[in-house]
Amino acid sequence: MKISRQMLSSSHRLWTMANKNIKQEVVNGIWNKVLTLDTMNQCVKTMEYAVLGPTMLRAMELERELQQGVKKPFTEIIKGFKGDAHAMGQKPITFMCQVLALCQYPDLLSSPSFPEDAKKRARRILEACEGHSTGSYSASAGIQMIREDVARYMEHRDGGIASDPENIFLSTGATSSIMAVLNLLVSGKGKNRTGVMIPIPQYPLYSATLAQFDAVQINYYLNEERHWELDVAELQGALNQAKAHCQPRVLCVINPGNPTGQVLSRENIEAVIRFAYEEHLFLMADEVYQDNIYAEGSQFHSFKKVLMEMGPPYAQQLELASFHSCSKGYVAKCGFRGGYTEVVNMDPAVKQQMLKLVSVWLCPPVPGQIVMDIVTNPPQPGDPSYEQFQQEKKAVLSDLAEKALLTEKILNKQPGIHCNPVQGAMYSFPRIQLPPKALQRAEELGQPADLFFCIQLLEETGICVVPGSAFGQKDGTYHFRMTILPPLEKLKIVLEKLNQFYAKFTQEYS
Amino acid sequence: MKISRQMLSSSHRLWTMANKNIKQEVVNGIWNKVLTLDTMNQCVKTMEYAVLGPTMLRAMELERELQQGVKKPFTEIIKGFKGDAHAMGQKPITFMCQVLALCQYPDLLSSPSFPEDAKKRARRILEACEGHSTGSYSASAGIQMIREDVARYMEHRDGGIASDPENIFLSTGATSSIMAVLNLLVSGKGKNRTGVMIPIPQYPLYSATLAQFDAVQINYYLNEERHWELDVAELQGALNQAKAHCQPRVLCVINPGNPTGQVLSRENIEAVIRFAYEEHLFLMADEVYQDNIYAEGSQFHSFKKVLMEMGPPYAQQLELASFHSCSKGYVAKCGFRGGYTEVVNMDPAVKQQMLKLVSVWLCPPVPGQIVMDIVTNPPQPGDPSYEQFQQEKKAVLSDLAEKALLTEKILNKQPGIHCNPVQGAMYSFPRIQLPPKALQRAEELGQPADLFFCIQLLEETGICVVPGSAFGQKDGTYHFRMTILPPLEKLKIVLEKLNQFYAKFTQEYS
Repeated sequence: MKISRQMLSSSHRLWTMANKNIKQEVVNGIWNKVLTLDTMNQCVKTMEYAVLGPTMLRAMELERELQQGVKKPFTEIIKGFKGDAHAMGQKPITFMCQVLALCQYPDLLSSPSFPEDAKKRARRILEACEGHSTGSYSASAGIQMIREDVARYMEHRDGGIASDPENIFLSTGATSSIMAVLNLLVSGKGKNRTGVMIPIPQYPLYSATLAQFDAVQINYYLNEERHWELDVAELQGALNQAKAHCQPRVLCVINPGNPTGQVLSRENIEAVIRFAYEEHLFLMADEVYQDNIYAEGSQFHSFKKVLMEMGPPYAQQLELASFHSCSKGYVAKCGFRGGYTEVVNMDPAVKQQMLKLVSVWLCPPVPGQIVMDIVTNPPQPGDPSYEQFQQEKKAVLSDLAEKALLTEKILNKQPGIHCNPVQGAMYSFPRIQLPPKALQRAEELGQPADLFFCIQLLEETGICVVPGSAFGQKDGTYHFRMTILPPLEKLKIVLEKLNQFYAKFTQEYS
Repeated sequence: MKISRQMLSSSHRLWTMANKNIKQEVVNGIWNKVLTLDTMNQCVKTMEYAVLGPTMLRAMELERELQQGVKKPFTEIIKGFKGDAHAMGQKPITFMCQVLALCQYPDLLSSPSFPEDAKKRARRILEACEGHSTGSYSASAGIQMIREDVARYMEHRDGGIASDPENIFLSTGATSSIMAVLNLLVSGKGKNRTGVMIPIPQYPLYSATLAQFDAVQINYYLNEERHWELDVAELQGALNQAKAHCQPRVLCVINPGNPTGQVLSRENIEAVIRFAYEEHLFLMADEVYQDNIYAEGSQFHSFKKVLMEMGPPYAQQLELASFHSCSKGYVAKCGFRGGYTEVVNMDPAVKQQMLKLVSVWLCPPVPGQIVMDIVTNPPQPGDPSYEQFQQEKKAVLSDLAEKALLTEKILNKQPGIHCNPVQGAMYSFPRIQLPPKALQRAEELGQPADLFFCIQLLEETGICVVPGSAFGQKDGTYHFRMTILPPLEKLKIVLEKLNQFYAKFTQEYS
């Protein structure tokens, strides 16, 4: 064992220590850190979260360079990588801003410049907060009054099917409730380890969380040829294969799809429910894009509603957790981190455990809960803010619908790019053919080929999108995810630019 | 295998399934849920979080009964269980309310009724948000400008010692960063499993998180006889014992102490740092009560400052994560879930991993980040809001100091109760002698004796406190934790009432 010069020069105490036992932290005179890539939690190390991955990191660098005056072939970064409507210039809903301001600075309640229903709402929320202050903790499952508003909202949404506020857990975005439910579900060792079925392509929160919890990820592929439909034969095949090496216990479905934008039909949902029931799976329905439905003939059906309408034995037995968020829809208050889960047919003892789990985190952010309250209990006809609220909501949603259609149309003009209809959510996920030399170059660089494409796109045009490999895709196919969120006129230009770049790229690498 | 009547009556598909293989979910005609206490994650099942435990749950029930008009020996519940100042009537800081309102409803920026510095601050924050909206996601480690404000704050706090914004991760309260750092640190199997040293009594976030991560909890006891001092010989003893069955890699210190209220001396902190260095431990310093210092002669010394002033080899090598929050101090905006960690000497590759980990959660709530910005960058002399801000801050802190002293004084009047000085934080943690018959009765009920006392206290007086067993304590000693947060006049009455109840209780069970 060698002792470094630095250590030799330090106190006598160090000598005592060095002689006490051979410490692995000082090897060949080099102090080793306690926490390194080798010693850290390997589950965290393994996990990937590529939405905020290499293309985003490079885009941030480029943006800094632009700010410093470095010349680029473009003048701004187009952030098509993140489902963040306000970052792309979407205007907030006025009533929501007013209620938030009133709740956080109650002196404003005496101001004549706020509509009466905003004041009434703020008073109602403050009344429900401990000490009548949004500064206090709420109950760990959320403010009781807001849980009740959420329940009534879902009853209304689902044609009168009952919803119990005690089954609703408000959370920090949908993310924290998705993680909580998965955390409860993952158990067992070796072949008994919990297997969780997730769609491919998927929203990478799922794969990341499963890696973190050391659960077994079971991929089922969405059918790109049929508008990313969810095929029960595919579910069955994936499940049968997985049974050899794990205990499949959970099925996750994302509807409307992220990144794939499909909206499941009612028949499809029924088939999924039957499958989950027959295979004794806990069903997790990620429905955060439920307000983002654009395509003619597409309609959102909640898993809860379909399940309940299917009657016995499904309705009484299938365990379901569905998720919603204030980061999407027409509200898109991502930064507020509001969301919730409704659990259905959950063992009451497990529900207690879930309450305990979330109580360690104390409570979801109260401002996010307030936003969730307004989403689920918007102004009603006759209220002073009703007309404006509806107008603003419609403006956002019809603009998104127009952009969804436009995206599909422009991208499909380009030979080599195929884009399924963006029926819902906030993304297109076009398939791109990549020429052999591009594949070869990517391999030389040790990059997935679609990442190589996306980085080149970024460097030449400033357009930042996420490669399909971040979400998963069939081997040998290549995609990227791009939001439909840029302002309409800009989106048109961006898409045309993207097509031009693609044409040039394929020519260059053919 | 039996098939239930309900199943017999259901579809043919079920028959096919039932005949396909014998499903454990249908045993003796009873449908078993996928997720039960037996099948769930046993680490989550094992963990305890008793702050929001039986006394709180019973208090909530009693409160509902009071509201329904049920007669009780008291007219209100005194919520002494939770460090939630606003719930107990603390007034919010005006400047903070103003900036929050302006940021969330920017139309107010044209209103003449806000001071110019609040508007300037709001504009500065909005400028730093994507799309100039608090509705957008921030970077996963927080808004860059706020990370810079935090760094400057710590430099100022620590007498000029440098702080790098890149080492600062804003988070959802301190909770989520404490969990993130622990998550990175826990690894290994069997005897190589990470051991984490935590004080007893502790804030139960630590034990709960360690149980959840299946890490090994190593208890070290604070010295109640010496004002809950942290004794290095005790650390050494606990560590040596633990080495037989795990790999101790982390030392957690809470200063000022929760629930114990002590403020560590500089010498004590130096000794702890030397110990951590010599034993090659990663140091986690929970410093969320750094602004809550009351006792004469007590002073807050940050671990970072002491570490840096100790010079080589400590300053360059010891890995440290310190934590702060907007839920405590004079701000106490618990519901906003703002907080941060500063990591020092962390391996840059691990820091990247930490960034990846937090990016899965997308971002900390932006309103909480705004509060954190104001905590770390308050109005300066000459600013229009400076005087009022300072006045409001001082009023809160001097009121708390008075209540800390009062608590100690009144409780120590009562024979059988001993309360150490509340030097800092927000709690008293008095030791109570319990008579033999009370211990016996508690045992018959299968309750910890201090829980039995606390429940009786609640039922007779409406005062809700948390039993010492929720935090850990030496065997054979009994305590409870009570906040010093009720308004002064009420606190006096509550403490006298508590003493009276204790006298009656001990008489009854002697």
